[in-house]
Formats: sequence, C-alpha cells, structure tokens
Amino acid sequence: MERLDQQMRFVAEAGQLKGVLRQTTLAGLARRENSAEHSWHLAMMALTLAEHAPSGTDIARVTGMVLIHDLVEIDAGDLFLYADSEQHDKQEVAERAAADRIFALLPADQAGRIRELWDEFNERRTPEAKFARALDRLQPMLENLTVGGGTWQEHAVTADQVLAKVELIEDGSPALGRLARTLVLDAVAAGILAPAG
Amino acid sequence: MERLDQQMRFVAEAGQLKGVLRQTTLAGLARRENSAEHSWHLAMMALTLAEHAPSGTDIARVTGMVLIHDLVEIDAGDLFLYADSEQHDKQEVAERAAADRIFALLPADQAGRIRELWDEFNERRTPEAKFARALDRLQPMLENLTVGGGTWQEHAVTADQVLAKVELIEDGSPALGRLARTLVLDAVAAGILAPAG
Repeated sequence: MERLDQQMRFVAEAGQLKGVLRQTTLAGLARRENSAEHSWHLAMMALTLAEHAPSGTDIARVTGMVLIHDLVEIDAGDLFLYADSEQHDKQEVAERAAADRIFALLPADQAGRIRELWDEFNERRTPEAKFARALDRLQPMLENLTVGGGTWQEHAVTADQVLAKVELIEDGSPALGRLARTLVLDAVAAGILAPAG
Repeated sequence: MERLDQQMRFVAEAGQLKGVLRQTTLAGLARRENSAEHSWHLAMMALTLAEHAPSGTDIARVTGMVLIHDLVEIDAGDLFLYADSEQHDKQEVAERAAADRIFALLPADQAGRIRELWDEFNERRTPEAKFARALDRLQPMLENLTVGGGTWQEHAVTADQVLAKVELIEDGSPALGRLARTLVLDAVAAGILAPAG
C-alpha cells in the first residue's frame, strides 16, 4: 500500500495546479486561465493536431509532456512569456527546485521517469519536445485572438515580438508555424496587435 | 489548409469546457471545479496510477478517453452522479446530440475516431474504458475528502450510496476499488460522510 499512498499524495498535490493563474484571459468567462485547464487544452491540441508533427513523433509522449510540464508552477508560479531575461533566469532556478520537491512525492522509479519527461520538454531537442513546446506557444495566441487582443494589449506586446516567438513553433511543426504567422498578420490587420515597437 | 482550419475550430470549441462547472468544490480555492481541469486531473491519474490497471491496458487510450470524455458537456452541462434515473436518461439524450454536433467539427476520419473513443468510454466494456471510468469516479471522492465532505454533505449523500458507486471502481481496478472502500470508511470515521440513509 506504501507505493499507492505515495502516488495518491502526488495526485492530490498535482491538483493544486488548478489554483495557479496564468496571464491569459478566457473569452466569455471574464477570468484568467489556470495552468491545469491550460495543460488540458494542450493535450487536446496534441490529440487533434498530431498529423502536423514530423512523421514518427510519439504523440503519447507529447501528451505526457504537456500534461506534466507546468506542475512546477505549484511552487514557482507562472511567468509571462515576454518577461525579461533576469526574471526568466530566476524562474528557471525556482522551477528546478520545484521539480526536485514535487516529483519526489512519487516512488523513485516514477519520479525519475517524470523528471526525464520534464527535462526533455525544457531542453527541446527531440521531435516530441519540439512539438509539445510549439503547442504551448500556439495556445495563448489562440486565446488572445478570441478575446480580441488579451495579453498583447495588456502588456503592449508588438507583432515583431510575437513573430520572434513563432520561430519555436515552426521548429516543432512547419504547418503550425505557417498558421501562427497567418494569425499574427490577421491580428495586426484586425487592429488587435500593434505592428512594431 | 481546409483540414487544419476544421481542427482549429474544434480546438477553439473544446476550450469552452473551461466554463462548464461541476458540483465539486475545490479545497483552498472556494470555487467549483470546471470540467476541463477535472479532465486534466484524470489524465494525471491515468499517468500516475497506470500500474493499477489490469496488465496489458493501453494507457495512452485511457488518457485519450479521459481527455475527451466531458466535451459533450459544452452543450449538455454536467449532471451530478447522484441525480435520479429520469435526469440521467435526459442527460444521455442531450450528450448524444452534443457528440453529434461537436465531434463533427473535425475532419470526418478524426470525428469517427473520437466518437469511437467516447462511445467506448460510455459503454464501459474494454479494460481501458473500465479503468478510465474508475478514475472518473474516484477523483471526486478525493476532492470531497480534501474539502471535508463537499458534495456528500451538500446533497446529503450517505456511505451506502457511495459504496454502491465504488463497485464500478473495483471493476476497473481491484487496487483502486480497495482504496476507495478504505476512503469511504475513513470519511465515515471522520464524521464527514453519514453512514446510512
């Protein structure tokens, strides 16, 4: 029973992710998105958009990555994509400490496997990690378009800044990269994203 | 581009699940749980508790099932487990209509595959569906225990009613069934669940 007890403690701890708020505002709900429902949406995208990953990509592994990628935010909180590099450096340290604590709730063999999955997502070297990261970058763009500007307007983000981030989407999936470029042009044309700084 | 457009419409529609509220109250957050974050929690449980499924269970398929199982609630809303049979019959009709509409947003081949997955979950014949349904039944019990009674108290649910629902958990996983029985006894001993009606 010891092993199942450890797993259930981890499952309960994971539930805390429902209380971690992101910058994204959800259209029609007038509230910010939390990291648990964001992770679910990415997993739905992995299932739906699998054919746009490079041939041979292990989609079950992509799904696993997006499901667990934000668990560290239970301790470290969510950092906005366009924060400065000093903030990103601090966040990285906090997230590593969080990974050490949270994954260790699991039996050692499982803790090791989930840490590998989380490291793979962050290192972004495999096709699975590149595709997972592309989804993670595309989803907030979709929410901003739906809500009519969202964080782009709240934080005065410009199209050239967004396009610089689109390169990572192209790297994970050429088709999704093309889609993202089109979305940026559409957003500028619709007047909900400023063209340049 | 037609195919990707259809997929993106489905992804956007799926996002509406973040606005569907369940009966469950989340400890520490003083709000009800939505069906998107609930689905994410079930997927985390599938990953974490995989070893308690019968040998040979395809966990990627279980994960897919729990990720998509509640999408029909975008149209049909969530129905409380302990609602009467007339309400359950009405809900079943509403959910089938919702499945017809929502899955049809996808290209036909994908719509067919997701419908199969959803039907499999509801028919509960395969080991994958039985395990997925067991997780879906166990998770609200965990939330009720964490919050000190939750929907059991709000709806005057008794231990014998909960134990009748535990049979479905045992059918998906003997180990999780034993755990669920222990949790019910613990809840009665703690005075947060009435022993009988």
